[in-house]
Amino acid sequence: MARILMKGNEAIGEAAIIAGCRHYFGYPITPQNEIPAYMSLRLPKVGGTFLQAESEVAAINMVFGASAAGARVMTSSSSPGISLKMEGISYMAGAELPAVVVNMMRGGPGLGNIAGAQGDYFQAVKGGGHGDYRCIVLAPSTVQELADLTVKAFDLADQYRMVVILLGDGFIGQMSEPIILPQPSGRVFDKSAWALTGARDRDTHLIASMRLNPEEALEKLNLHLQGKYAQVEKSERLWEDSQTGDAEYLLVAFGLSARICRSAASALRKSGITAGLFRPITLWPFPAQELAVAAAGKKKVLVVEMNAGQMVEDVRLSIGSAAAIDFYGTVGGSTPQVDAIVERITAYAR
Amino acid sequence: MARILMKGNEAIGEAAIIAGCRHYFGYPITPQNEIPAYMSLRLPKVGGTFLQAESEVAAINMVFGASAAGARVMTSSSSPGISLKMEGISYMAGAELPAVVVNMMRGGPGLGNIAGAQGDYFQAVKGGGHGDYRCIVLAPSTVQELADLTVKAFDLADQYRMVVILLGDGFIGQMSEPIILPQPSGRVFDKSAWALTGARDRDTHLIASMRLNPEEALEKLNLHLQGKYAQVEKSERLWEDSQTGDAEYLLVAFGLSARICRSAASALRKSGITAGLFRPITLWPFPAQELAVAAAGKKKVLVVEMNAGQMVEDVRLSIGSAAAIDFYGTVGGSTPQVDAIVERITAYAR
Amino acid sequence: MARILMKGNEAIGEAAIIAGCRHYFGYPITPQNEIPAYMSLRLPKVGGTFLQAESEVAAINMVFGASAAGARVMTSSSSPGISLKMEGISYMAGAELPAVVVNMMRGGPGLGNIAGAQGDYFQAVKGGGHGDYRCIVLAPSTVQELADLTVKAFDLADQYRMVVILLGDGFIGQMSEPIILPQPSGRVFDKSAWALTGARDRDTHLIASMRLNPEEALEKLNLHLQGKYAQVEKSERLWEDSQTGDAEYLLVAFGLSARICRSAASALRKSGITAGLFRPITLWPFPAQELAVAAAGKKKVLVVEMNAGQMVEDVRLSIGSAAAIDFYGTVGGSTPQVDAIVERITAYAR
Amino acid sequence: MARILMKGNEAIGEAAIIAGCRHYFGYPITPQNEIPAYMSLRLPKVGGTFLQAESEVAAINMVFGASAAGARVMTSSSSPGISLKMEGISYMAGAELPAVVVNMMRGGPGLGNIAGAQGDYFQAVKGGGHGDYRCIVLAPSTVQELADLTVKAFDLADQYRMVVILLGDGFIGQMSEPIILPQPSGRVFDKSAWALTGARDRDTHLIASMRLNPEEALEKLNLHLQGKYAQVEKSERLWEDSQTGDAEYLLVAFGLSARICRSAASALRKSGITAGLFRPITLWPFPAQELAVAAAGKKKVLVVEMNAGQMVEDVRLSIGSAAAIDFYGTVGGSTPQVDAIVERITAYAR
Repeated sequence: MARILMKGNEAIGEAAIIAGCRHYFGYPITPQNEIPAYMSLRLPKVGGTFLQAESEVAAINMVFGASAAGARVMTSSSSPGISLKMEGISYMAGAELPAVVVNMMRGGPGLGNIAGAQGDYFQAVKGGGHGDYRCIVLAPSTVQELADLTVKAFDLADQYRMVVILLGDGFIGQMSEPIILPQPSGRVFDKSAWALTGARDRDTHLIASMRLNPEEALEKLNLHLQGKYAQVEKSERLWEDSQTGDAEYLLVAFGLSARICRSAASALRKSGITAGLFRPITLWPFPAQELAVAAAGKKKVLVVEMNAGQMVEDVRLSIGSAAAIDFYGTVGGSTPQVDAIVERITAYAR
Repeated sequence: MARILMKGNEAIGEAAIIAGCRHYFGYPITPQNEIPAYMSLRLPKVGGTFLQAESEVAAINMVFGASAAGARVMTSSSSPGISLKMEGISYMAGAELPAVVVNMMRGGPGLGNIAGAQGDYFQAVKGGGHGDYRCIVLAPSTVQELADLTVKAFDLADQYRMVVILLGDGFIGQMSEPIILPQPSGRVFDKSAWALTGARDRDTHLIASMRLNPEEALEKLNLHLQGKYAQVEKSERLWEDSQTGDAEYLLVAFGLSARICRSAASALRKSGITAGLFRPITLWPFPAQELAVAAAGKKKVLVVEMNAGQMVEDVRLSIGSAAAIDFYGTVGGSTPQVDAIVERITAYAR
Repeated sequence: MARILMKGNEAIGEAAIIAGCRHYFGYPITPQNEIPAYMSLRLPKVGGTFLQAESEVAAINMVFGASAAGARVMTSSSSPGISLKMEGISYMAGAELPAVVVNMMRGGPGLGNIAGAQGDYFQAVKGGGHGDYRCIVLAPSTVQELADLTVKAFDLADQYRMVVILLGDGFIGQMSEPIILPQPSGRVFDKSAWALTGARDRDTHLIASMRLNPEEALEKLNLHLQGKYAQVEKSERLWEDSQTGDAEYLLVAFGLSARICRSAASALRKSGITAGLFRPITLWPFPAQELAVAAAGKKKVLVVEMNAGQMVEDVRLSIGSAAAIDFYGTVGGSTPQVDAIVERITAYAR
Repeated sequence: MARILMKGNEAIGEAAIIAGCRHYFGYPITPQNEIPAYMSLRLPKVGGTFLQAESEVAAINMVFGASAAGARVMTSSSSPGISLKMEGISYMAGAELPAVVVNMMRGGPGLGNIAGAQGDYFQAVKGGGHGDYRCIVLAPSTVQELADLTVKAFDLADQYRMVVILLGDGFIGQMSEPIILPQPSGRVFDKSAWALTGARDRDTHLIASMRLNPEEALEKLNLHLQGKYAQVEKSERLWEDSQTGDAEYLLVAFGLSARICRSAASALRKSGITAGLFRPITLWPFPAQELAVAAAGKKKVLVVEMNAGQMVEDVRLSIGSAAAIDFYGTVGGSTPQVDAIVERITAYAR
């Protein structure tokens, strides 16, 4: 299995094709334009459809339609474009439609800039749209993981009939790293019970997100959704635990921030301070129990994010009073510095 | 000062006029159509502008424009329509533009139903849009408070140049209660330093949410925003503390849920169980310290919401391990029952 | 009555205000942006509403709404933006709603360029939208006439409940000339029988353009419309006849082309060739009979347009075989040259 | 070659597939919904793309895109939906992009009704969009011809790089008649000189409709277009001449009206009055010379249309004073009656 050099955004595109995605609808925005560009080249060659829609709102509703027809479908955008998709994502949650949505976060709020950022954690994890819905949120930190988690995202979407958000950032999408292309999982999902594939010789299916009767229909749907979400929380947590066993200090970070923290942890160990890294890979479901175990008894837990403090809330909820928690964040598309992290941990150790 | 009987949604409209709001842009959706209907009748009579836009996206961008010109401006919608405004709200946060956005929440996710719900707490409080921004979120629980907080919302918006969300629900907007119309606050906000009012005889102003230079411009803006948000958190917390001093059990709820909890607390006291109610009026900034004080030493804290559990996270973050926390929620537009709350607290007491 | 120097597009704006127009909805496009800019400054000062809509489609539908409410309302654009309004204009014709639509034509087709042109004659006169409808089309050739015909346009619109198109071109909109501002006509139009002004104490009105029953409702509407159009054709023809009586050669042109033809006619007379100019001011209704009289017995009729030959069809239909007709046109935003016209007529005379 | 029974709208769909059309973009409207329905079923089976767009405006711009990429592409709609496409069609004319646009006309103006009509002749033939552009307009009068002309439309579009409008009406689209499916023409059009197919190993292509320099770029384009249109006028006229040689009276009609006229002509001949039918099949280019020949010396020419009088202008321009011309039209979706035509011609003959 040969390694090839791929840019992050292109790795997502190729992995989506490998996963059987044959439909892509989107609207361009930096820094993720390599994804639609790649899909526009590749999809026609595999009998698929690439379409640049009139707007982000149009694109997510096309995703709704293709998913309702049983297809594997993806859209991608960056922060402002994802905000425009909030209504559509909530509709898909209400209709239990699977899809993969890639957000290569840029600096915000508003139009912001085209640098990478992690300011959309809340939006992705707490539900930027309305209503009690959840998306599975995957946070890759390498190009290899971008590819691997893209394949996994399609399986999770189909298994649970949920929207899966691949939450990267502008920097990681632009990085080129050698990767081994993932294999298709081989998993088969039978959508015949609900997909709108033409009702010849069978009863009709209905896919809708309106259920006007509050006590019965909509409450019933929500209880079903909550049951499903509980199952996902139980079964689908992913995390990476790196040298946390003997560590006095625990760094917690996801995505690009975790790469920086890994460097900081190495530097700290060289200087005699034992630091470890806990990296949530699924941001929802959040690996709360695993983090609680990893954090127990540490002298200090430092959460590092490229935002003003978002995941830190989930860290606090996970750890409670079992360890002291501090936060270091950078905003507006700037990145955490290894030196700054080392310095801060070193200060704790004094 | 005479009391008049007003429907919740109409009270918002009249209070907005009293507060000096002269521009309303929106798109219809049940259960808040009385707001645009009221504004369409009243605004032309006071020299204002009512406009039903092509879409919710168009409406929020018209709000952006009117606000940039220094006007007091409002939009309103219900859950799905608010999701469509997420990009625009993030842009306004980035451009530091004041406005009042009313969300009369309905059952979700998706199109859901037209009953009242509280499923958009996360969206309003954690930022449904992208980037590290905050909105001030006010949660009225009576028609009088709908009116009073509408006037306050305009002042807060102008004082901090922020979007203020008035977060009600479909039930409260439809209720009719006798109210005393609020007075204008009399506060005057000088917008001459930034509003786009024509640049004759002065330097030009620029209102933008794009700041391409990450390290300097956008980071600087974000640090400024975070400073402003810290000030709001310090100064603008509102809450109601009802019979919590001697209570063994504490109910925590906002909006309509708090009304139901108040009835439950009364019923409990009649049966000899001392229960109190802590009601956050500002959901952001969340009255965390006040809640922590009120909750300290209670036998149990029960959070009641018309959703699957959203504010309960902020309650946990506020109280930590100082008291045991439980949650009771109803989903899909159904409402918590007094009996169910009484029963649950009674069970704790056994 | 003092003369003031005004730019063509601004003269339209001021004349609209004088005519009582208090609502303007539009979307920017060169070379007519001075109109929305002017209206955005002036309308708020006279208690009116200026709104830049999300798109040209949105704008024309806002015009529909304001007109249905009985208001004097205007929109303006240039060629591509006018094409986007075709559906809306047909709807207004079907609903018999008055409005003034300004088209400052630019070079086409497509995005073309921002120079002036007359390539939208067919669109304006033959109906660019669908169905058997007509708009009154006014073709000013001086800044004074831009102002005067704007006032007249509002009266014609209200009198006949029709859309009136003011058809200028990019050059004339940019010209500055001394003008005397027109007076309001003083005519009053009672819209109480149809305008949607609130149905308190009266029967409701219905404004619609859908009439599903073909034989009865829609045929009846169309016969009514055709009757109305016949009345307009009979009563509202406007034209200018300049030195045509003794002329051997007749130039026929509208708008800017007519100004150029006037210079050519003068030059020809200086060289001993008697030429006259017939200038239609209303393009629909076309002054066919008057042109036929003016053209009778001429040695040659030369139609000059800034397009590939559009009005020339109406000239042929008007004159029939009563005189030989030739055409000289320039395309793509270029303008007819006096010398070229002189040369051509001189060649006929040889 | 077996005859099969097909509905008019479905015959268009199947013929488009036969012609190699693999892309369809549209938005539903009665009475042509059988076309998108048919394409949505068939296109995926032949490796094509069917997409219901967000709006008619979105659809025509997707047609622009697919055509620019060298694909055979079609859209369809009915009158109001076609009006919304006017800007896009003008853009395609300016960019010289081929496509087939089907208009199954309904009663107008505005939303009108869903019966068949011919009220969009002017829009199709004179250019409903802005600028000096032309579309080839084909007017079938049987289901067989709907199919045959659809295949021809794609060839004409590619040969001349023009938009070809297939102008039917709501009635003919709904008729079921036995037809022989057409064969592909076998003609091959080399688009390699201009289509945007990826610029690897060749110079880049540019497709644009903006040409800012009036004297040079845009004038040059227009002169090129006019030259092309002259060639089309010379080479592509189609018409049917039925029993006109010995006729004293000539009926002129297209599409469904021509079917009714044929019945009227037969009835007239049975009663001893010799009547013939001239049916333009291309409405642009209009078969003017052929009509002039056919009309010469007739006692009367009667133009019959399902509108208030549109093609009659082109008939007048073609025939001039060579014969007396009369008009009989029905409006609002009602149809000409055989008896009424017979009666009118009989009255001439008295």
